[in-house]
Amino acid sequence: MKLAIYGYGNIGKGVELAAKQNPDVTVTGVYTRRDPSSVKTLTGLPVYAADEILSHKSEIDVVVICGGSATDLPDMTPMLAEQFCVVDSFDTHAKIPQHFARVDDAAKRGGNTALICGGWDPGMFSLNRLYAQAILPDGKDYTFWGRGVSQGHSDAIRRIEGVVDARQYTVPIPEALEAVRSGKQPELTTRQKHRRECYVVAAEGADRAKIEQAIKTMPNYFDEYDTTVHFISLEELQRDHKELPHGGVVLRSGKTGLNGEHTHTIEYHLTLDSNPEFTSGVLVALARAVDRLHRRGELGCKTIFDIAPADLSPLSGEALRKNLL
Amino acid sequence: MKLAIYGYGNIGKGVELAAKQNPDVTVTGVYTRRDPSSVKTLTGLPVYAADEILSHKSEIDVVVICGGSATDLPDMTPMLAEQFCVVDSFDTHAKIPQHFARVDDAAKRGGNTALICGGWDPGMFSLNRLYAQAILPDGKDYTFWGRGVSQGHSDAIRRIEGVVDARQYTVPIPEALEAVRSGKQPELTTRQKHRRECYVVAAEGADRAKIEQAIKTMPNYFDEYDTTVHFISLEELQRDHKELPHGGVVLRSGKTGLNGEHTHTIEYHLTLDSNPEFTSGVLVALARAVDRLHRRGELGCKTIFDIAPADLSPLSGEALRKNLL
Repeated sequence: MKLAIYGYGNIGKGVELAAKQNPDVTVTGVYTRRDPSSVKTLTGLPVYAADEILSHKSEIDVVVICGGSATDLPDMTPMLAEQFCVVDSFDTHAKIPQHFARVDDAAKRGGNTALICGGWDPGMFSLNRLYAQAILPDGKDYTFWGRGVSQGHSDAIRRIEGVVDARQYTVPIPEALEAVRSGKQPELTTRQKHRRECYVVAAEGADRAKIEQAIKTMPNYFDEYDTTVHFISLEELQRDHKELPHGGVVLRSGKTGLNGEHTHTIEYHLTLDSNPEFTSGVLVALARAVDRLHRRGELGCKTIFDIAPADLSPLSGEALRKNLL
Repeated sequence: MKLAIYGYGNIGKGVELAAKQNPDVTVTGVYTRRDPSSVKTLTGLPVYAADEILSHKSEIDVVVICGGSATDLPDMTPMLAEQFCVVDSFDTHAKIPQHFARVDDAAKRGGNTALICGGWDPGMFSLNRLYAQAILPDGKDYTFWGRGVSQGHSDAIRRIEGVVDARQYTVPIPEALEAVRSGKQPELTTRQKHRRECYVVAAEGADRAKIEQAIKTMPNYFDEYDTTVHFISLEELQRDHKELPHGGVVLRSGKTGLNGEHTHTIEYHLTLDSNPEFTSGVLVALARAVDRLHRRGELGCKTIFDIAPADLSPLSGEALRKNLL
């Protein structure tokens, strides 16, 4: 399978590395909106200008679109889906239905197969919510995120006056997790589920008390959480907080029996040293499925819910049944 | 969807209860090889003789076959798959390829859809092995079972002379689990992963030392494990060990990055108060998928690997994308 990487940030680099772990996958090119001569890839892939991609059509089975959900993907994915089979990692939950509709139209018009919302949330976490609800209809779902870096929250801190750089960790609260695991199906507030830990580099002479106050009272991002703020030097930030770890837990606790006398918990737990590299692993497996669906004539927009698990694997049905079932 | 339950043991009862939690599912009859008048169901379902099932064809969309893997399913599933859409929970790992081939032939001959090996292992555990391998190709899998009752091991103890009844618990060893979670990818022996805990009721006057020795040295079942044997009274067994809890963990630990510098762990964890009731929840969701595949003309034998997750859910694609993705 021949992949194109469209956009070369953290996810683009992750896809480059993930493809190397899959012998059936080759990346034929990286497409960037920057000056291609200014971009050096980790493994020496050819780099082209984004607007050249149409002239490389014969070298591409699936385009993995590695743009941001806020401003890039809403236009990029429908545009590319008209010309190519595509995969994206769109993650603005509230806008999924409209993104789906636009990509579905475009892919069908072009005779292509598209998959949106690949990754782990949305993605593998969504999948585990679906499976768990289907198995245990009488139950309650919980999702915990972290411990991990939230890019959105880190960005929000950086926009505060006097902040040079920042890193925000989302931290699940162990007592809440234990209460859920016990099968008690607790009602938990936002504050009871997660806390937020901020590492902030302040400009020289900046008012630290004011910055801390601005963070802790920021609506939606921080005001509903217990938040701690640590001021550190730029050197410390670069030394101790350069990685992008993340993860989390999807739990469902459900009842069965004649009178609901039996409790079950299903728990899916990710611990990730690198959020973008793990996400990229999911995207490459999904690209394999998209290529297979397209060869079978299954066109239009899909999500991970529509993909038979066997289509994610390089192994044959026979090998899967013999070795993994 | 109209289900028939074929065989009324622990799983048959579980399917009866699981169907009640799914508003789109009705059980139209229980089919038994015993005298139907001797069988009372938990919720008052009609009970028929197994060999009458063909005369009820119009009342059945899918037959959930609730027999044993050792002697029932190898013949029962192909026989029924020629006449009906079917689901079974065949779990003899080594014989899956030949069971698949026979059921596939029969289902195709009859124009039906069949699904074998439903449940949690094989089943949900298999699925998690597949997903995790597809996402993290460079890694290592681990499966731990328990703490839970192994029916096979309990039966093996019951066959020893002087044993009235017995219950065997498979117990994962916490240190082994922690070593795997740490990302170290340890090599673990059978003895390092699980221990076995036996509760045995001995006949009056039986030689307990001899029974204990017979258990601990039994090839395949116990000789490779650290095994503890507790002699208890029949009353204690019936009071403290009447439930069938089970569960376990599927873990994959994998590396990504330019030089494998990032470690990730994916963990799927089940804690089940009732093994047969949870298994039945999986079977009913799979029966829903089988019915949908059949209506779309997708015939022959399938496994959980071939089922798009959306087909397990009563919700529409639109509702799934809006609420669970």
